[in-house]
Amino acid sequence: MAEAETPNRSPEIRKDKIHNRWVLFSPARSRRPSDFKAKSNPQPSNQTECPFCAGHEHECAPEIFRVPADSTNDWKIRVIQNLYPAVSRELDFQNPVSLVGDVAVSGFGFHDVVIESPVHSVNLSDLSPAQVGEVLLACKKRIAQLRSCDSIKYVQVFKNHGASAGASMSHSHSQMIALPIVPPTVSARLDSMMEYYKQTGKCSLCDIQPNELLIAESAHFISLVPFAATFAFEIWIIPRDHSSHFHEIDSEKAVDLGGLLKLMFLKMSLQLNNPPFNLLIHTSPFQDDPSYAPSTHWFLQIAPHLSGVGGFEIATGCYINPVFPEDAAKILRDVRISNDNI
Amino acid sequence: MAEAETPNRSPEIRKDKIHNRWVLFSPARSRRPSDFKAKSNPQPSNQTECPFCAGHEHECAPEIFRVPADSTNDWKIRVIQNLYPAVSRELDFQNPVSLVGDVAVSGFGFHDVVIESPVHSVNLSDLSPAQVGEVLLACKKRIAQLRSCDSIKYVQVFKNHGASAGASMSHSHSQMIALPIVPPTVSARLDSMMEYYKQTGKCSLCDIQPNELLIAESAHFISLVPFAATFAFEIWIIPRDHSSHFHEIDSEKAVDLGGLLKLMFLKMSLQLNNPPFNLLIHTSPFQDDPSYAPSTHWFLQIAPHLSGVGGFEIATGCYINPVFPEDAAKILRDVRISNDNI
Repeated sequence: MAEAETPNRSPEIRKDKIHNRWVLFSPARSRRPSDFKAKSNPQPSNQTECPFCAGHEHECAPEIFRVPADSTNDWKIRVIQNLYPAVSRELDFQNPVSLVGDVAVSGFGFHDVVIESPVHSVNLSDLSPAQVGEVLLACKKRIAQLRSCDSIKYVQVFKNHGASAGASMSHSHSQMIALPIVPPTVSARLDSMMEYYKQTGKCSLCDIQPNELLIAESAHFISLVPFAATFAFEIWIIPRDHSSHFHEIDSEKAVDLGGLLKLMFLKMSLQLNNPPFNLLIHTSPFQDDPSYAPSTHWFLQIAPHLSGVGGFEIATGCYINPVFPEDAAKILRDVRISNDNI
Repeated sequence: MAEAETPNRSPEIRKDKIHNRWVLFSPARSRRPSDFKAKSNPQPSNQTECPFCAGHEHECAPEIFRVPADSTNDWKIRVIQNLYPAVSRELDFQNPVSLVGDVAVSGFGFHDVVIESPVHSVNLSDLSPAQVGEVLLACKKRIAQLRSCDSIKYVQVFKNHGASAGASMSHSHSQMIALPIVPPTVSARLDSMMEYYKQTGKCSLCDIQPNELLIAESAHFISLVPFAATFAFEIWIIPRDHSSHFHEIDSEKAVDLGGLLKLMFLKMSLQLNNPPFNLLIHTSPFQDDPSYAPSTHWFLQIAPHLSGVGGFEIATGCYINPVFPEDAAKILRDVRISNDNI
């Protein structure tokens, strides 16, 4: 058993200071940290083509743009409308009335899809760092377009990989939902980071000391397991330089981030047996109160789904994590990926 | 198509005023509301006996009490320790220090199991209203014991039915976790209910007007689909009389609640094809600030798992619900259960 593995360690309750919530660490429930593997994983299906594949563009909802912009059948990335949108771009937006009673507003917003490759079987981790960077820049470009709509307050970019992580299409894609409200978890994060700033005069993510939680570093980013990780083997990738909005990323940083993201996917896939996961971009609302700028710092979260969420988590908002972050970080740090694969 | 079903209705964003969070209602993503069925459901396994069955008591963690108290092999309910506790009753509790940096406290607490029947294949919905009432009274009794521990601030009672709802044992049981902290979702609920009280002078649940959201009523309780339900076909059961704590329930009300709970399980199982679900008791912390008493009101939540949770929900705390609460309530109201089954 590796030294960092402490299956007999006592349970601990840790505070996630970024989200202001508690996580229970309960190693007694688990196997050894290095024994964690996905129970179900996204199997390659017999399907070889789908509506997201090149040549099937007519089966999709309307395209917003493609990369390269002037490409025909040889596109690399397409940003399209979601055929089954959770919010509707066709509704008039009314501001929610501040009522004490029931409050409902029209479900105005934008729900888009980023098709990350023209080829059905290609995953984000199969792309080169520069190609992953291009996907990130396509998200940036679409966010810049959405920003011009006055009623949109926040854009959530997310990727669901594997059916049990919420994916309904296996062809590699991300989604973004642009909302006329600031969602509750985002408000809680902004308030909590502001509180840290008020107490210390520093941004909580600029001030982070990864130490034994570090997994890897690149020129502009660090990757680590957060001190109070919600999910076993959860990973955060944080820009070294202070920046409130993901859409401030430039081309050089996007390629650098592409490389680190790819490395994290390869390590996670090898160690955890290609688990279902979510990739989330945590950024700041558009019409930010400028007083929030020094305290808000965007980051990426990779959340592997190694166990289900039960009633306790739904009721309390406290998650139970069977793997201590230090152990998860050591295991992920030690996974060797050949340079040929990067 | 029934009149209440409106698959072409526009998306709507509703505020859950009890939890102060937003839910997206997006019927375009879905089939007709009456077509919703569980994709996977808890199948009866070939297993006929397990450690929770009568005769296997020695395979379990220590017993706390049984019902009837003086029974031997003919017990009806057993409350035992969890063999794999998320928190540990053996640790010393230290108060969390109010630090700006990383905060961790020992994982002190109690994690217990309520075995609801001595027979492997019996579900809560197979019991009589009086027997379901006895299970509720066993929870009440255990909560009263936990209340005597000064460091415990909150007890969460929850039931996971089906593997995809978090159940690791198929034998019917509930769990309770007693915590030295007030969990984040509970704090948010208390604050939101207090805010309603300050604005109106009324308790938000005493003031609820179910109208078209009503499913059924009993002498002391009403069941309804909440206006901003997080999950499709979610059900709340609310005591008619104002009461902050579940453990204030008496025997008469427990039997009455047992009958309504059983009716909801039967309707849900018939309409939704025995779905995996969570049953949650939302109560108030023990050492309640007395100023919260007029605004806090306990209730039960039944959350069927008809679709998975994806990255958007994890990132934002906004859930996407494909079924409008009015439609779900009408469908559940119309499910006929023979009186012979109650």
